[in-house]
Amino acid sequence: MEKKIITISREFGSGGRTIGHLVAEKLGIPFYDKELVDHIALESGFAPRFVEENGEHAPGSSFFAYAFAQQSVPGIMNGLSTADFLWNIQCQVILQLADKGPCVIVGRNADYILKDRKDCLHTFIHADMDFRADRIVRLYGESEKSPLARLQEKDKRRRVNYHHYTGRDWGDAQNYDICLNSSTLGVDACADIILKIVENT
Amino acid sequence: MEKKIITISREFGSGGRTIGHLVAEKLGIPFYDKELVDHIALESGFAPRFVEENGEHAPGSSFFAYAFAQQSVPGIMNGLSTADFLWNIQCQVILQLADKGPCVIVGRNADYILKDRKDCLHTFIHADMDFRADRIVRLYGESEKSPLARLQEKDKRRRVNYHHYTGRDWGDAQNYDICLNSSTLGVDACADIILKIVENT
Repeated sequence: MEKKIITISREFGSGGRTIGHLVAEKLGIPFYDKELVDHIALESGFAPRFVEENGEHAPGSSFFAYAFAQQSVPGIMNGLSTADFLWNIQCQVILQLADKGPCVIVGRNADYILKDRKDCLHTFIHADMDFRADRIVRLYGESEKSPLARLQEKDKRRRVNYHHYTGRDWGDAQNYDICLNSSTLGVDACADIILKIVENT
Repeated sequence: MEKKIITISREFGSGGRTIGHLVAEKLGIPFYDKELVDHIALESGFAPRFVEENGEHAPGSSFFAYAFAQQSVPGIMNGLSTADFLWNIQCQVILQLADKGPCVIVGRNADYILKDRKDCLHTFIHADMDFRADRIVRLYGESEKSPLARLQEKDKRRRVNYHHYTGRDWGDAQNYDICLNSSTLGVDACADIILKIVENT
């Protein structure tokens, strides 16, 4: 197994998390998604909920975020914005986890952070809007906003965050070893394709 | 085999043509690349060489192209530019070939032209610059231009043509069912992945 670290970038609602979980389970290797949030929270001093909501989103200048950060980690941020401080911690944590051994890492621009390692398989999971809309209502419940509006807002925030910190375009095939449409191929089939690639390297 | 028609969009030098050929050979179905050019030439009245050089490139306003077209097909173009006339023929030919049965179609924006058919697997093959540069020198020989300059020019022309006729961004993962990096996965492995998907549907 030459490709030891699998990064899963994913559109919200595409099933990327489920695919990553299936792959990690079959390979018997750690799966970092919520666990990644906990690591970053521990290193940064932010609450897990705050990390989860801000780690992949647009670098904002929200007064509340800044005030919250100042209270949480006084004197540690060295004049960085909350978003930049969080980004630095995120990079450190992801690089350290990759050094520890084979794993699956979901989201958080890990494809870019680990781009110089040769033992990574960088994947991107996307899906048609209808499939994603149906999935987020089933998995995350109804909301005041329409499913489409929720998807568009999430896409926009991830796109802006990704471009800001990597200089790349979100969803550009060139950034990944493999991109899969989970709505046309199926969630299980996507996991199988990734597993076969990893097993054959 | 639910996915009967496989479209292969590809970066110049990525090995997309070879991958398409391997897939068609293993499945025992027609492979349309140069053959597609001949079909379009026959339908349009243009010389195959002209179709090959202009069918995937930026919609130009070259005086020579226009003059050539006027001489070749007087009275048939109905006031369309050479590029638009060629695009219309290209659409007709690709739709007709898809209607005939299972096949592999390389290039010519077939992913967009056949986007409404449910029995297509749309693939995009890309690769790192070094891999492509090495490959075009080996396959197509040296040229006055550096390999990098040749790749950049070809990429730009295909990108502009694709965006002009489809309104989409070239290489955007969302346009395809699967995107593969042939330089990190290997040309043969890419063909195997596509074959397995087709065989399992």
